[in-house]
Amino acid sequence: MSTPVSHQPTLQPIVKEYYTFAEPPAEITLESGARLGPVTLAYETFGNLNAARDNAILVAHAFSGDSHAAGHYTTDSEGEKPGWWNFMIGPGKGIDTDKYFVVCPNILGSCMGSTGPSSINPATGKPYGLNFPMMTIGDIVTTQKTLVDHLGIKRLHGVIGGSVGGMQVLEWCVRYPEFVRAAVAIATTMRHSALAIAFNEIARQAIMADPNWNKGNYYGSNKPDLGLAVARMVGHVTYLSDQAMRRKFGRKLQDKETFSFGFDGDFQIESYLRHQGSKFVNRFDANSVLYITKASDYFDVVDRMGRIEGPGNNTREKTKHLVISYTSDWLYPTYQAKELVQTLKRSGQDVSFCEIEADCGHDAFLIPDERLTTLIRGFFDGLS
Amino acid sequence: MSTPVSHQPTLQPIVKEYYTFAEPPAEITLESGARLGPVTLAYETFGNLNAARDNAILVAHAFSGDSHAAGHYTTDSEGEKPGWWNFMIGPGKGIDTDKYFVVCPNILGSCMGSTGPSSINPATGKPYGLNFPMMTIGDIVTTQKTLVDHLGIKRLHGVIGGSVGGMQVLEWCVRYPEFVRAAVAIATTMRHSALAIAFNEIARQAIMADPNWNKGNYYGSNKPDLGLAVARMVGHVTYLSDQAMRRKFGRKLQDKETFSFGFDGDFQIESYLRHQGSKFVNRFDANSVLYITKASDYFDVVDRMGRIEGPGNNTREKTKHLVISYTSDWLYPTYQAKELVQTLKRSGQDVSFCEIEADCGHDAFLIPDERLTTLIRGFFDGLS
Repeated sequence: MSTPVSHQPTLQPIVKEYYTFAEPPAEITLESGARLGPVTLAYETFGNLNAARDNAILVAHAFSGDSHAAGHYTTDSEGEKPGWWNFMIGPGKGIDTDKYFVVCPNILGSCMGSTGPSSINPATGKPYGLNFPMMTIGDIVTTQKTLVDHLGIKRLHGVIGGSVGGMQVLEWCVRYPEFVRAAVAIATTMRHSALAIAFNEIARQAIMADPNWNKGNYYGSNKPDLGLAVARMVGHVTYLSDQAMRRKFGRKLQDKETFSFGFDGDFQIESYLRHQGSKFVNRFDANSVLYITKASDYFDVVDRMGRIEGPGNNTREKTKHLVISYTSDWLYPTYQAKELVQTLKRSGQDVSFCEIEADCGHDAFLIPDERLTTLIRGFFDGLS
Repeated sequence: MSTPVSHQPTLQPIVKEYYTFAEPPAEITLESGARLGPVTLAYETFGNLNAARDNAILVAHAFSGDSHAAGHYTTDSEGEKPGWWNFMIGPGKGIDTDKYFVVCPNILGSCMGSTGPSSINPATGKPYGLNFPMMTIGDIVTTQKTLVDHLGIKRLHGVIGGSVGGMQVLEWCVRYPEFVRAAVAIATTMRHSALAIAFNEIARQAIMADPNWNKGNYYGSNKPDLGLAVARMVGHVTYLSDQAMRRKFGRKLQDKETFSFGFDGDFQIESYLRHQGSKFVNRFDANSVLYITKASDYFDVVDRMGRIEGPGNNTREKTKHLVISYTSDWLYPTYQAKELVQTLKRSGQDVSFCEIEADCGHDAFLIPDERLTTLIRGFFDGLS
């Protein structure tokens, strides 16, 4: 039940675990109708499951995230690093691991330990590449549900996540409403706008334009690093904001007093983006970018969110919702969070909404901010 | 005086003309200190220069524009097309060619008839490629001044342009204030923000990541079409707006009723961007993108704009300025136009400002709009 997938991450977590299910021929059926198995989810847990098995909070990571939500771990390339939400999760923190049992699974289709296009296809003995079936946010969530059941969790105290993690939160709410006591969707949307699809498509085209991509069949040879770096640069800019970039970089030059009049880069923002691009290729798989961006483009819960409460289903305890947006997020702007809030209200849900004033753009939820911590602590603790 | 450059465009204009100057050894010196010659500017004129030679309006085109500002012309790839500002320029139009002599030069560094990286380097007999010297908006404008002098224009009635064309307008104002009676800067900025530099850098990286780019030496062999297409897709998205893309594309599917669950593109916005990318590679040179994006990143007139009026220079007739921005332009947002207006006011200039409510983003000035036409007509005609 804990077979590591072939594509081992270079990270060396202390308590990374693996759950493997759907061994062929008992494969799972994906939303597309395609079948997949075995499926491994890498995950980490923090805190302890209580006797009632109802104090678990599932933390859903964003696009290129991983199961290292909290604590510290060691990477080959970057040394010791804190988990991506270490400021939020831990004893006495916003999500208090003295109270809650936190589970953070790496998503299906990723490359950080869970089954994805870089995993070995049992039918061929080679990495899937483009033979990996297209998957959806729904598929990500149903596999998470299998893991949560496996862990013996009776009902989730909460599901929380930002960006693509927020999409998973919404999918949990429409798919398993009775299983989710409280849901926190941060910096996310019910469905991608044309603008968001456009940037994802540019990222995909940048990867697929790299001849090393080779129709996804590059494992064991040269990887499409240049295309993947461009894709990451595009994505990274959409996570920032005009204001924050002005504040942080402006027109400052990199190691220069005057213009170089060449193409090696003059401005700090250029060096920064190149650095982000090259850092990303050391840790992430290009095909995973293709699959996860498609899953987020396909994601659309508008109709289902409007009919969570079917007839005769009004007696159960409803999920409590907290929706959080950021003023400077132009990838999933506040008006999209408000559309979500309105849809939840119309379907009779219990929903709170907060727009946080912050100039750092979409990625604001990954930056320590006492306002966010206080909101989340109050919301989860207020349920008990 | 009218030697066509080696890189002949495929367009067949009716009255495209060429002016060549700076034959070696009498090369021009660029802002970087590099020397360049000969220099050819392709240009088109509309209307007639009056006897006083003071009714000329210089129309400065944007990043990938050309001298075909008005009338109709024929292209190999797209058949007959109107000039890019044909709705604005012509008899009785906003810029009335019954009154004004309109000059539209293709900019230095471009590939639409003027000298650029695809032109023949006289020192080698081969295209310049990366041996083309880095040039600035200042260099673009000084070469335009040489052309304007050559045409016998005594003083410009006006200089007008949007985006990178607007940068040329501002450069004209600081470099030759006595020569410009009126200036209209549309959807532009005094200097690139980190965000604007970031998108240009991504476009450059996309081109340079294409192995066919070959350090700029691809003329006569395979061109970096895939990289250039990605670069164009990035640029194109920055010219649009979230609102316009929602209105025009939303989540509409292309020739499909359901998702393909593949990577060939599902959404109309994907097909649209791919189409924009492949159309661009048929008409534009990748190296020109590199040079012109760098010129616009380097552009910065903030300091010079603040000191147009030197001591003892207050008796001459001042340039009249009109600054226009668009509500949905997020590449050069209205706050940047206001910074320009404030700078002009502080230096004692005569400036009018108008923000046009439009949801179509940065490229709004290229879309017929009676409000823009009325503004421009009133501004130029009101001077006489």
